[in-house]
Amino acid sequence: MTEYAKLGRNELLALKAELEAEYAKQCALGLKLDMSRGKPGSDQLDLCEGLLTSVGTSEEAYLGATDLRNYGGLDGIAPMKELFAELLGVSASEVIVGGNSSLNMMFDTIARAMLFGVLGEKPWSQQGEIKFLCPSPGYDRHFAVCEVFGIKMIPVDMKEDGPDMDAVEALVSSDASIKGIWCVPKYSNPQGITYSDAVVDRFAALKPAAKDFRVFWDNAYCVHDLTDTPDTLKEILSACKAAGNPNLVYEFASTSKVSFPGAGVAVMAASEENIEAIKKVITFQTIGPDKINQMRHVRYFKDAEGVRAHMKKQAELLAPKFDIVCDTLEKELSGLGIASWVRPNGGYFVSLDVMPGCAKTVHALLKDANVVMTKAGATYPYGNDPKDSNLRIAPTLPTVSELEAAMKMLCLCVRLAAVNKLLAA
Amino acid sequence: MTEYAKLGRNELLALKAELEAEYAKQCALGLKLDMSRGKPGSDQLDLCEGLLTSVGTSEEAYLGATDLRNYGGLDGIAPMKELFAELLGVSASEVIVGGNSSLNMMFDTIARAMLFGVLGEKPWSQQGEIKFLCPSPGYDRHFAVCEVFGIKMIPVDMKEDGPDMDAVEALVSSDASIKGIWCVPKYSNPQGITYSDAVVDRFAALKPAAKDFRVFWDNAYCVHDLTDTPDTLKEILSACKAAGNPNLVYEFASTSKVSFPGAGVAVMAASEENIEAIKKVITFQTIGPDKINQMRHVRYFKDAEGVRAHMKKQAELLAPKFDIVCDTLEKELSGLGIASWVRPNGGYFVSLDVMPGCAKTVHALLKDANVVMTKAGATYPYGNDPKDSNLRIAPTLPTVSELEAAMKMLCLCVRLAAVNKLLAA
Repeated sequence: MTEYAKLGRNELLALKAELEAEYAKQCALGLKLDMSRGKPGSDQLDLCEGLLTSVGTSEEAYLGATDLRNYGGLDGIAPMKELFAELLGVSASEVIVGGNSSLNMMFDTIARAMLFGVLGEKPWSQQGEIKFLCPSPGYDRHFAVCEVFGIKMIPVDMKEDGPDMDAVEALVSSDASIKGIWCVPKYSNPQGITYSDAVVDRFAALKPAAKDFRVFWDNAYCVHDLTDTPDTLKEILSACKAAGNPNLVYEFASTSKVSFPGAGVAVMAASEENIEAIKKVITFQTIGPDKINQMRHVRYFKDAEGVRAHMKKQAELLAPKFDIVCDTLEKELSGLGIASWVRPNGGYFVSLDVMPGCAKTVHALLKDANVVMTKAGATYPYGNDPKDSNLRIAPTLPTVSELEAAMKMLCLCVRLAAVNKLLAA
Repeated sequence: MTEYAKLGRNELLALKAELEAEYAKQCALGLKLDMSRGKPGSDQLDLCEGLLTSVGTSEEAYLGATDLRNYGGLDGIAPMKELFAELLGVSASEVIVGGNSSLNMMFDTIARAMLFGVLGEKPWSQQGEIKFLCPSPGYDRHFAVCEVFGIKMIPVDMKEDGPDMDAVEALVSSDASIKGIWCVPKYSNPQGITYSDAVVDRFAALKPAAKDFRVFWDNAYCVHDLTDTPDTLKEILSACKAAGNPNLVYEFASTSKVSFPGAGVAVMAASEENIEAIKKVITFQTIGPDKINQMRHVRYFKDAEGVRAHMKKQAELLAPKFDIVCDTLEKELSGLGIASWVRPNGGYFVSLDVMPGCAKTVHALLKDANVVMTKAGATYPYGNDPKDSNLRIAPTLPTVSELEAAMKMLCLCVRLAAVNKLLAA
């Protein structure tokens, strides 16, 4: 393969004609493909059909003498707390089990901080301009939460082992209006990067200028390994304790991509002091989460080992899809100097960096061919990818054959956009 | 029966001795009774055991081509919207179906108003002191929500057919800092009063000084009839439309006391303009509620008629309990001039007004005898019943025999407290 940048104008023109012909041919096939959504496929969901009936009788809706159908249980049932505690490597006293959505818990956590403040500090809404650090590329829904609350977002670069910690440390320690940072520490969305132990330790040792600064640690993919050599993430709460910073982190997770995205169970973990303060507010918000659905999960998965065994079955369905994505990128784009990516060991996405200035063009070319990708820019705060380079590939929802067709088309568009860019230079 | 007020001092002293002896005798029995909680009994919950398995296979988790296990569906699934719309007498386009808690939807509605404002008005949190009207006696958790948000509560008297509308109209039209009023319009908590058509029409015709004033219409007991001659409540959204006030009301309801308190489905209803504005915020808060649990309800109850048939079965269990409460009150207290109550046609409570200045004493006497009642004062804002007169009886959770014993003890304590009060006068 010759790098495109080394091709002469005539070679590029010939290539352009060839690629455009191929593009027209593919368009004529009437494709209708979607690689935009981080949603499990129905085959993954079928794997836990038994969950639907794991609480099937009135008797099974009891936990000891407690009737789980009735009111009560503000922070979740004990065995679900224990299951999550085991999965996250924290203590059951450090978790609150919620409803079906960890996003909801994150949104509510920020709403509480805005209205009631964090551990006795003034409500964020009374502190003038508030800012969050946003390692980028990152998760668009994190950024959207900041946007709706009017929280100013400051992008921070992602490196190979996590956020640029020099930048994070400098910003957090010098600016008391910075109140939080969004992290997806394992198999990050979209890059699939797992933070190194050194990065976790540097987080735990942060010396924020703001007492009410919190790390929003969205451990969404904590059990979402795809290979036999999975990444491991150092546990953050104990790292914070060891660093004398016990209250620094709010951690979030859920079974949304373990059991059912719409009907799973969400959790947050934090120091006991944080947890107590949060419960003092949520006791006004609700009488308790859906305990029956928690019991379904407890009865079905039993324990953390049960969850991990289940995730192995999901990996059997997902690994071939990630292979198609990465193998196609390898085959079609390697050596051309127009794109880069990393094969992740888990998570839900593959992040693709195309030639700077080309991501929107690639997205548009695909859209015209009826291939839907997450919008270019979505992985950056305010939808603004300064290099216009990053695209997020979500391989889970399409079938294997759809994915093959979609990836072929994506690579074609990446090449075509690059050739046009080079010709215009 | 002679009215206690007409008894002479010696007669009262004799009665006191007699009542105290009886109280001591009852205490010696070692009772352990609870009439404090508006919770269904497990026998009521057993009635819908089939709900647990009504979505029992992967196939049953589909609605047409939509996989309800997956993400999506911000405002609920269509048939659940239709079911609630039929129950409430509104249009499906006027409802948002939520999670398992209507209290959560109410809390979030106030949090949204505080942070984002109501239909384009300034956020409540930026408008200085905010006030709510609180028809009293009322529901303690409504009052608690105001308290945690720092919203000043103004009590308004309850009359036989609803809140004192002269007071409501005068206050709402003259004070722009009044942003809401809490209503339980059918079988009110605790009195079991249903608002008359005239009261509903006066609500619909309110001319609030504040554009962002809303009536919080907690229709918690909309299908909770106990008799063959149930109360009927005029539908408020259409009344508001007719009065040219379409955006005035936020209505709330749930199946918490229809199916399972901890695992039911909650709903809010409002004008389409209100609904659109709310959805613009909640789209940042969650990807959607638990659609499987909604589908369980749809498949189990089918439609509003199915819900009503189910509630008839609940009434068969509950009516005898309400009879014990009211019959015992009748037998033990009528004609004594020391207490008043109304036999409700539905709902979850019986409200008892004892001699002014005696409610706390009655509560304490019962507590010493191991009979738990809702705290005296809890039915008023800030826990402050100005007359110290109101007690809330919750008959649903105890068994029939427990309830008989508890009611006998309650009446004894009401009499003893009255005698002591008269002797001290």
